[in-house]
Amino acid sequence: MSLVVQKYGGSSVADAASVLRVARRIASYRAAGHEVVVVVSAMGDTTDDLIDLAKQITPTPPGRELDMLLTAGERIAMALLAMAINDTGHEARSFTGSQAGVITDASHGKARIIDVTPGRIRGALDDGAVAIVAGFQGVSQTTKDVTTLGRGGSDTTAVALAAALNADVCEIYTDVDGVFTADPRLVTKASRIPLISHEEMLEMAAAGAKVLHLRSVEYARRYGVPLHVRSSFSDKPGTLIVEGGGRAFPISPTEMFVTPTEEEAMEQPIISGVAHDASQAKITVVGIPDVPGKAAATFQIVAEAGANIDMIVQNVSTEITGRTDISFTLPAADGAAVRQALEAAQQELGFQRLVYTDQIGKLSLVGAGMRSHPGVSARLFEALSEAGINIEMISTSEIRISVVTDLAALDRAVVAVHTAFGLDSADGEAIVYGGTGR
Amino acid sequence: MSLVVQKYGGSSVADAASVLRVARRIASYRAAGHEVVVVVSAMGDTTDDLIDLAKQITPTPPGRELDMLLTAGERIAMALLAMAINDTGHEARSFTGSQAGVITDASHGKARIIDVTPGRIRGALDDGAVAIVAGFQGVSQTTKDVTTLGRGGSDTTAVALAAALNADVCEIYTDVDGVFTADPRLVTKASRIPLISHEEMLEMAAAGAKVLHLRSVEYARRYGVPLHVRSSFSDKPGTLIVEGGGRAFPISPTEMFVTPTEEEAMEQPIISGVAHDASQAKITVVGIPDVPGKAAATFQIVAEAGANIDMIVQNVSTEITGRTDISFTLPAADGAAVRQALEAAQQELGFQRLVYTDQIGKLSLVGAGMRSHPGVSARLFEALSEAGINIEMISTSEIRISVVTDLAALDRAVVAVHTAFGLDSADGEAIVYGGTGR
Repeated sequence: MSLVVQKYGGSSVADAASVLRVARRIASYRAAGHEVVVVVSAMGDTTDDLIDLAKQITPTPPGRELDMLLTAGERIAMALLAMAINDTGHEARSFTGSQAGVITDASHGKARIIDVTPGRIRGALDDGAVAIVAGFQGVSQTTKDVTTLGRGGSDTTAVALAAALNADVCEIYTDVDGVFTADPRLVTKASRIPLISHEEMLEMAAAGAKVLHLRSVEYARRYGVPLHVRSSFSDKPGTLIVEGGGRAFPISPTEMFVTPTEEEAMEQPIISGVAHDASQAKITVVGIPDVPGKAAATFQIVAEAGANIDMIVQNVSTEITGRTDISFTLPAADGAAVRQALEAAQQELGFQRLVYTDQIGKLSLVGAGMRSHPGVSARLFEALSEAGINIEMISTSEIRISVVTDLAALDRAVVAVHTAFGLDSADGEAIVYGGTGR
Repeated sequence: MSLVVQKYGGSSVADAASVLRVARRIASYRAAGHEVVVVVSAMGDTTDDLIDLAKQITPTPPGRELDMLLTAGERIAMALLAMAINDTGHEARSFTGSQAGVITDASHGKARIIDVTPGRIRGALDDGAVAIVAGFQGVSQTTKDVTTLGRGGSDTTAVALAAALNADVCEIYTDVDGVFTADPRLVTKASRIPLISHEEMLEMAAAGAKVLHLRSVEYARRYGVPLHVRSSFSDKPGTLIVEGGGRAFPISPTEMFVTPTEEEAMEQPIISGVAHDASQAKITVVGIPDVPGKAAATFQIVAEAGANIDMIVQNVSTEITGRTDISFTLPAADGAAVRQALEAAQQELGFQRLVYTDQIGKLSLVGAGMRSHPGVSARLFEALSEAGINIEMISTSEIRISVVTDLAALDRAVVAVHTAFGLDSADGEAIVYGGTGR
């Protein structure tokens, strides 16, 4: 008997028929003797509908009340799902985030989980019931008010409960068949990744793969929770995300990239996939004095504007002017606020002008052990060069190489790199690749 | 500075525009310096929509989960109302029944309030905020599960909070202008009752007046909470319901009925109004042995079938047969279950047959002190006689006389009695008279 935490996104419970289908899947797990905890999102467009209602009242709803409003969405979904499961002959009880012991800070709309005390969930399981938990919500430790976790919240609820309950696996059900070597909308020959490490998945998510939210992967990695990304619309095997990754896993579709001459198979570089992100922008601070402290002061201002910067490049300064240029990327959504903050500090920082563009794309190649294989970056640059694509910025980690290109060239770049690293599947599955809501 | 509890029904918050209108009313109370606690129902048809959703899942939803589902309705309404009030410049915080300290038993769908511990509400008021509370819901003392209070639940929430907070008044906002001397849909000359006692209102509600639910009036009477029934669509004065009633109140529209020859004006019979109820049915148990214990056994079976009986008449037995007939009225909705239960016990009870009809109507005349004024019942019977209406059953209390008539004659009976007791207003206001949902 295993303890399984399952998370179903809004598209998996979009209407009554979907709720009944999901209930049958859950019932089959119970029938097989597993303990099941289910985390559920709001049905279909419910959250958007509630936000629309709030907008009819005021353009600036208080965070506390917006959270109170939005949590009604999961409440509806979880009660209906519990009813549907009960109808299959298996007992089910629904719990709000607060009842499930999801304790957060008081940051409405983007609360962080502080602790999980799933006493009532454990009690329901001990009674032989399926526990249904509202995703995306918790209760503030200090104010006792209802909070929401923000983007990726339901995935994070599921992972946090899996960690607290010491679950055997956390299954994330979505409307795609798993994590792919590239976005199948761009790369028709993209294939499903059967096994990947938390670290690689983290890089994939950070680099723009939307099937799992970065935050839930971080949580899973920290607490060693195995994740299983699957479709709620099929019985396909999905993608397993585990500690230490898929090095010893024999049936990786990326084996073809393994260089046969390597002595130690465990240390061969395995490319998990190619991620891309078209939502970034680039700001170049032109002609900033090349003296100690100027870069720090610049990024202090960016941080105060609330933006997470991604890649940074500082040009070599010209000795004649004593000035340099600093370029960095950031979410395009934060672009206006950061430009305004920097422009207000122009005198203090002493730069000459700002150049801003959101016409950039980021391509990331993710895989374990690539840092110790210089051939990887060489092959990447060669593939882009052969496709006639210019590289504007480069950054690397232990298991990722990212490049910034012109936005118009991004799609072509992804296809070229996917092919160059032997990731193209023989039989391109036709998959609709969608993002997870929350 | 007063502490005012206001309850707004679903029709008062049917859409965003209504929510904004209600928010302005609440803001005007805050601006006048009052402390305000608001109890709100689900918007418009939300509850019916949620029930429809549940029916798409299963015809037999578990009570626990149905309560979880339905409480989403008030959650949405209260969050939106809090947003709207905040937008007027007055702070507002919404609270679930559980957060507001509405402690109930564990009877899902029809929970009874056990205790009210409004610590967080008092705290919000002390902070200068308006407290918005979800009506109709509470939390079980034993299971800690969310419960709903059933019919009349939101009114009861408001009265219970008013009692626990020692509020100066509990205002019940609805879509009619107050309590009327008769249903204005039947009696065009019905007029608003400006002042009435808890006891009289209780009889009015029990006798079929739908503007206030019996249960909330019982609660208000027990804890001495003054109620004020008003329209949220106008600034009309409404109906005030207070302890001891309106005896000393000088401007009752029913003064015209005061017999001028009475010595003590305080003890004059004052007719509050004429209520009617077309939802009753009558069962006659024909030919039951007239021996001790048979009536008790009959009503024991009726009670076990879950029906509240109202009026009972037992015929004089004929000495020849040693048998008698027992007639009683009950809600038509319970008719089938009670008939079935009695028929199953026919051998045990020894009766000959059952006669059932739901083609009856009940008319009740409510007013203080009528028992000590024999002229009241005489005038009632005379009025019905003159209108050619036959009386099938009669029952009385200290402040009420009820008669059962043929259903087809009920409307005519109400009009005739309303006129006979001088209740017709000179200027019949045109009012749409609607029931309160929950």
